[in-house]
Amino acid sequence: MRIVIVGGVAAGMSAASRAMRQNPEADVVVYERGEYISYGACGLPYVLGGDVDSFGDLIARTPDQMRARGIGVRLRHEVTGVDAGASTITVVDHASGRSAVEPYDKLLIATGVSAIRPDWAQTELGGVHVLRDIPDGQAIEASLQKAKRAVIVGGGYIGLELAETLHCRGLSVVVVEKGPEVAGRMLDRDYQRRVRAELEGNGVEIRCGTTVESLTGKGGHVTGVQTDHGLIRADVVIVAVGVRPNVGLARAAGARIGKTGAVAVNIRQETSVEGVYSAGDNTESTHRVTRRRVHIPLGLTANRMGRVAGVNMAGGDATFPGVVGSSIFKTFALGAARTGLTQSEADALGLKAVSVDVSSTDHAGYYATAKPIYVRLTAERVTGRLLGAQLVCNNHESVKRVDVIAALLHGRGKVQDLFEMDLSYAPPFSGVWDVLLVAADRLSREIGKKQE
Amino acid sequence: MRIVIVGGVAAGMSAASRAMRQNPEADVVVYERGEYISYGACGLPYVLGGDVDSFGDLIARTPDQMRARGIGVRLRHEVTGVDAGASTITVVDHASGRSAVEPYDKLLIATGVSAIRPDWAQTELGGVHVLRDIPDGQAIEASLQKAKRAVIVGGGYIGLELAETLHCRGLSVVVVEKGPEVAGRMLDRDYQRRVRAELEGNGVEIRCGTTVESLTGKGGHVTGVQTDHGLIRADVVIVAVGVRPNVGLARAAGARIGKTGAVAVNIRQETSVEGVYSAGDNTESTHRVTRRRVHIPLGLTANRMGRVAGVNMAGGDATFPGVVGSSIFKTFALGAARTGLTQSEADALGLKAVSVDVSSTDHAGYYATAKPIYVRLTAERVTGRLLGAQLVCNNHESVKRVDVIAALLHGRGKVQDLFEMDLSYAPPFSGVWDVLLVAADRLSREIGKKQE
Repeated sequence: MRIVIVGGVAAGMSAASRAMRQNPEADVVVYERGEYISYGACGLPYVLGGDVDSFGDLIARTPDQMRARGIGVRLRHEVTGVDAGASTITVVDHASGRSAVEPYDKLLIATGVSAIRPDWAQTELGGVHVLRDIPDGQAIEASLQKAKRAVIVGGGYIGLELAETLHCRGLSVVVVEKGPEVAGRMLDRDYQRRVRAELEGNGVEIRCGTTVESLTGKGGHVTGVQTDHGLIRADVVIVAVGVRPNVGLARAAGARIGKTGAVAVNIRQETSVEGVYSAGDNTESTHRVTRRRVHIPLGLTANRMGRVAGVNMAGGDATFPGVVGSSIFKTFALGAARTGLTQSEADALGLKAVSVDVSSTDHAGYYATAKPIYVRLTAERVTGRLLGAQLVCNNHESVKRVDVIAALLHGRGKVQDLFEMDLSYAPPFSGVWDVLLVAADRLSREIGKKQE
Repeated sequence: MRIVIVGGVAAGMSAASRAMRQNPEADVVVYERGEYISYGACGLPYVLGGDVDSFGDLIARTPDQMRARGIGVRLRHEVTGVDAGASTITVVDHASGRSAVEPYDKLLIATGVSAIRPDWAQTELGGVHVLRDIPDGQAIEASLQKAKRAVIVGGGYIGLELAETLHCRGLSVVVVEKGPEVAGRMLDRDYQRRVRAELEGNGVEIRCGTTVESLTGKGGHVTGVQTDHGLIRADVVIVAVGVRPNVGLARAAGARIGKTGAVAVNIRQETSVEGVYSAGDNTESTHRVTRRRVHIPLGLTANRMGRVAGVNMAGGDATFPGVVGSSIFKTFALGAARTGLTQSEADALGLKAVSVDVSSTDHAGYYATAKPIYVRLTAERVTGRLLGAQLVCNNHESVKRVDVIAALLHGRGKVQDLFEMDLSYAPPFSGVWDVLLVAADRLSREIGKKQE
C-alpha cells in the first residue's frame, strides 16, 4: 500500500508516523516543497527573540530520522496536480526541475496555510517579511542585523508575539492594526484593551484603526509604511495580517471546500473524494460548542488531524473529536487565553449568552508574586451551559488554567459543574477560591437573578 | 432565628457570611476561642519566609468588618458544652473567665483540627512549636531571631514548605520523617523521591525512617532532638506530624463521629443531631472517585462546607458535592500536585488500576524556561476511567494543570476523554502535546495492550 503525504510539517509528519505505526508494511512517502520538515512553526518568534537558541532547535525530527523509520521524505518536491480518478499525483523536483507522475493508494493533503500578502506587500523591496516557516525566520533575522525601526502590520497573536521579540532586541516597534483593537479575533473588547495596555506600557506603539496603503523604499530596501494616517518610518516590516488555507491541490483533486474556505472533511479526515484525506491548517474542523464547521489553524489541531488521517489511511479507524476553540499567547509579561466562545462570538451566533467579569489574583492575594488576573466567563442564559472563557494575567503562565474550562466544554458542562470543581489550592498557586471558581459563583448568581 | 457558629476561621466565617446573605434577619453569632478570625492559615509558612509581609496580611476580614455586616463576633470565647436537647451551648469568656449558657436555633461546629503533639513534644522547653494559627506563627518568628539550626519533624507538605522557608532564612534545616519517604500521604514513591531530591539539592538534610524519642534542652530551651538514629542539634524544633480533628464538641452534642475520626455529616452538612451542623477541617467529606467518606482537611473544602452549612442553617438549600482529593504544594522551585487516587491508594482500595509515568517539558522543549515535568496518570484498567494524577515540576506553577484532571474526575471521565481535550498551546505555556495529553495517549495504549 502506497500512502502519499503532501506537506511535511505538523499534520503531514504526524500522519506519516502514525501510518507507519499502524501498518509497518505500508510504503509511506512525504513530499515537502520546502527544505525543512517536522518543525515547530509556533516557535519561530522565540528564535528571533533569543528564548530559543537557533532555528534548528525547532526541528523535532530530521529527514534522516524519518527515513530511519522507513518513511520516505522528498524535500523541495512540490506536488502540483492530482488525478483522483487515476489515483496519481504530479510532482516537481525543484532540484532538477523535472516532474513525474506518481501513484498512490491513499493521499493526504496537508498543505497548511500561507501568510496573506496584501497588494501593497507584493514587493521586491528588501526588509519586508512574513513569518510562516524557517526560511522566513532566517530572512527576518538577517534583516534585523541592521534594523532600528520595525513596523508590524497586524495585531493578531503572531504580530503581538513579534512585537515583544523585536522590542526586546532594541528596535523601536510600531504595530499597525486595521481593526479597532489588537487581538481582535481572540478576545472581547475589554480584554483586547488589556493586551494593548501591556504592549504600550512596555514602549510598543500601537496604531489601531489604521490601514496600510503602500510601502516606501530606497535603494531596494523598505524605508517606511504609508498608512491612511500618515507615514511610519521602518527598516523592517513584518506582515502578519492573517493566513489563507492552501486549498489549490484539494480543489484540483475535486475535494469539496467548505464555507470557511478550508477543505471539508468528515471525522475520519476524509475529503469528499475517495482515497483523499486532508489534515492540518488547510482543513476545517468541528467546533464542539457550536457544532459548526470552523477553520482555526493551530498546532495541536494540526497534529491531531494528522494522527487521525495517518491511522485511517493505513487501514485503522480513528476519529477527530473537534475543537473547543482554545488558544493562548504571551506578549511581554502578559498571558492571554481563551476557549469556547467570546461574548461577541456568542452574540453573532444568536446565542442568548451572559458573561461576568471577575478580577482576582492568580496566587493568594497576600503572596509576594501574586498579580491581578482577569477572567470573563460566558454561559448560555437559560440552560447555564458554559460557552467560554477569556483570561488575561501579567504572570503569563497563570492563564493556562483556561484548560479547566476547555475540559468542561468538551463535556458540555454547566456553570454549576465548574463551581463544584475541587481545584488545587496553595498560596503560591492560586487563591483559596481559584479565580475560575469565583467567576463560576458570580455567573451562577447572575443566571439565577435573571431567571427569577 | 439565632444561628450560632463555633469557630471563626475558614468554614465558620464562610458560613456566617452566607447565612447572613441568605437571611438578613437572622441573628448570627460566631464564637472564636482564639484572637483572630478569618485568616488564611495556609499562608503561615510564607509569612515566616517573607513572601508575605506580615501575619496581618493573612487576615481576610477583621471582627469589625464582620460586625459591620451584622455578624456578631466574640473573640476568646470558647464553647465548652452543648445541650442539643435544650438547644443551648455553654460559652466561657476567657477575658473574664465567666461562663454562660446561650440558646441557638441552628448550631454550626467548625472547630477545625489541632496539630498533633506526640508525648515527646509535650514540653515546656522554649523553641518547640507547631504551626496551626497566627500565634503559633508569631511564636516561631520570635524563636527564629536567634536560631541557627532547625529540625522539622514530619515530612508532609507543611514540613516541606517550612523547610524551604527556614533554609532561605539562613538556618541549617534537618527534616526528620518516621516513614520511608517525604510527602508520604500525597504521592507515590517515585514522586516522593523527586520531592526529596529537590530539598536535598538545596541543602536541606532529610532523614527518613527516623523516629524522634525525646528532646534535649538547656536553660529551658531546646538544644536537640534525640532520635533512634542519634541526636540532632537544634535551636528550634517544628512539630509537623499531622493534625487531628477537634470533635469533642460534636461528640458532646451527640453527633456521630465517622470512621475517619472526623464528624459525619450528610450532603447538607447536617450532623446526626437535629439542628446541629458541622463544616471545615473537623468534618468528613465524600470522595467523588471512590464514593467513600474521607477526612482531607484543606482550605477550599473548609470554605465550601461552610458556605453550604451557612445557606442551610439560614433556611436555604445547598449541598456539598464532595472532593476529588486535589492538593498541591511548593518547596524551593518544585511544585507537586495530585488529584484523585495515587496508584498505591488505588491498590489499597482493591481497585484494578494501571499507571503510566511520562516525563516531558512544561513548556515547549526548545523554549528557554522549559523544565522537565513528570506526570503519573492512573486509570481503572478495564473501564479506562481516570482515577488520578500526580505531577512534579521545577517550575512550580506548571503543576497547577492538575486541575484539568480534577475537572475530569468530577465527571468520571475516561482516559480517552482527556486525550481528546483541546488544551491551549503556545511555546511559553506547554508543548504542542501538553504533558497531560502525552500521558493520556500513553495510558490509553497501555490499557488497550492489556485488553488484547
